[in-house]
Amino acid sequence: MNPATLTIVGVGLIGGSLGMAARQRVFARVIGVGRDAESLETARRLGAIDDSTLDPLDAARQSDLIVLCTPVDRIAPQALALAAACRAGTLLTDAGSTKAAIVAALDGRLPAGVSFVGGHPLAGSEKRGVEHASPDLFAGRLTVLTPTARTDTAAVGRAAALWHALGARVRLMDPDEHDRALALTSHLPHLTAAALAGLLPPELHELTATGFRDATRIAAGDPSLWGAIFRHNRGAVLDCLRRLTDRLDEFRAALEAHDDVALDRLLTQAKEVRDALGS
Amino acid sequence: MNPATLTIVGVGLIGGSLGMAARQRVFARVIGVGRDAESLETARRLGAIDDSTLDPLDAARQSDLIVLCTPVDRIAPQALALAAACRAGTLLTDAGSTKAAIVAALDGRLPAGVSFVGGHPLAGSEKRGVEHASPDLFAGRLTVLTPTARTDTAAVGRAAALWHALGARVRLMDPDEHDRALALTSHLPHLTAAALAGLLPPELHELTATGFRDATRIAAGDPSLWGAIFRHNRGAVLDCLRRLTDRLDEFRAALEAHDDVALDRLLTQAKEVRDALGS
Repeated sequence: MNPATLTIVGVGLIGGSLGMAARQRVFARVIGVGRDAESLETARRLGAIDDSTLDPLDAARQSDLIVLCTPVDRIAPQALALAAACRAGTLLTDAGSTKAAIVAALDGRLPAGVSFVGGHPLAGSEKRGVEHASPDLFAGRLTVLTPTARTDTAAVGRAAALWHALGARVRLMDPDEHDRALALTSHLPHLTAAALAGLLPPELHELTATGFRDATRIAAGDPSLWGAIFRHNRGAVLDCLRRLTDRLDEFRAALEAHDDVALDRLLTQAKEVRDALGS
Repeated sequence: MNPATLTIVGVGLIGGSLGMAARQRVFARVIGVGRDAESLETARRLGAIDDSTLDPLDAARQSDLIVLCTPVDRIAPQALALAAACRAGTLLTDAGSTKAAIVAALDGRLPAGVSFVGGHPLAGSEKRGVEHASPDLFAGRLTVLTPTARTDTAAVGRAAALWHALGARVRLMDPDEHDRALALTSHLPHLTAAALAGLLPPELHELTATGFRDATRIAAGDPSLWGAIFRHNRGAVLDCLRRLTDRLDEFRAALEAHDDVALDRLLTQAKEVRDALGS
């Protein structure tokens, strides 16, 4: 595909890694768009982008492909604004952790000839910023694309080709199905880690080991990014939260009843799942 | 201190690491005691022990220092049996994850001249077996010792010297205080990770990333070891579980009420704790 010009809006961990990988794989030119000239200059120095601008519309006019790597609550409004400035044939996609609300806000609402395909690379960490970006972030990882019945098939192919070129595997999913799945595999673990971390008083820091640290690592994620994710996926997150508290209740009941068999069954089932998942 | 003969009962991840570190630091002779001759031979081949026996009493008779690295529900009965065979002056200690029940079962019940000091090195992983042992496992880590008013002060000094020689820091705590603290810093995270892992259906494995994997890693721990830990520390674990479900309820209420301020406050407080904890 090799678009002449790729624009990345939001050059942090994800956008920066995307830029580094795209430039290594000979996409002709990568423009970074952000709100802070200094951090864009850092991104350029680190090899994530070729050029930068604070004016998204200026970048949009020059782009063949635009990837929005901004917080989930900003993606749809930005895509609508950028699409109005794009040439026909431009593809917009994103890297947001939720898909249904974003896709619903854009589906069938872009100018003729401009396409949007929802995307979510399942990569990242609790860290932020282009300083932590890596061209290998997506290698061997899964990117979910969430086309709808209205999405142009060729646009889906172009979005898939982008992620394949970056080393990722690609899976197509319905946006709602994506959000229900990620509520369990990503949003619930974050919420649980935050609840657990929040209980730790300073005087017990010294008494934590790798277990506590692993279990709570993601709680260091940015509260505003995660707040937006939870708001976008409220229903599915609440549903998963109920399932978790039901399961915690089973543990509580087994402990209270001195029911060693039930306790062992719960622990064994969890170990079997975790072992099957691999490291 | 350099005891002539150190006996390790249970030569797995913890016991094996202890043996490797003790041998490197020129403890004269390390005897491994276990129930399986083949795994003891593996431990010897890996440099964790010098000799081995399936007969704990035979080892006890020759030992200056004995460390019990067995599951928490077996430590106190084993210590009582071994103490009867020990020479006067022998020190028994352990590496169990709970302390109150073990210490209560042994305090004031050993033959004259034989001492027990409860110990818990805050190191380990979800892995088991001497194959994963490392002489550096305790380097820079904390070991808690839990003497009581009846414990011989010289014995506490000898136990502390052992862990210092292995590279660990040492902190003295009351056994009940230890168990209440570890309920929050270790047992609750395990239970939470198990609850979370247990909810994942096979078809969603592909949609997990590092967040889910980190948050649930400890759920791969051995169910029988952890079942025994939960039973030993039932009251404190149930208390922590109530605190966790109360906190999860605060998240639920904030989401249901669309209370973005409350949600952000919860996420921010958790991030502050996790950031303060370090990697």
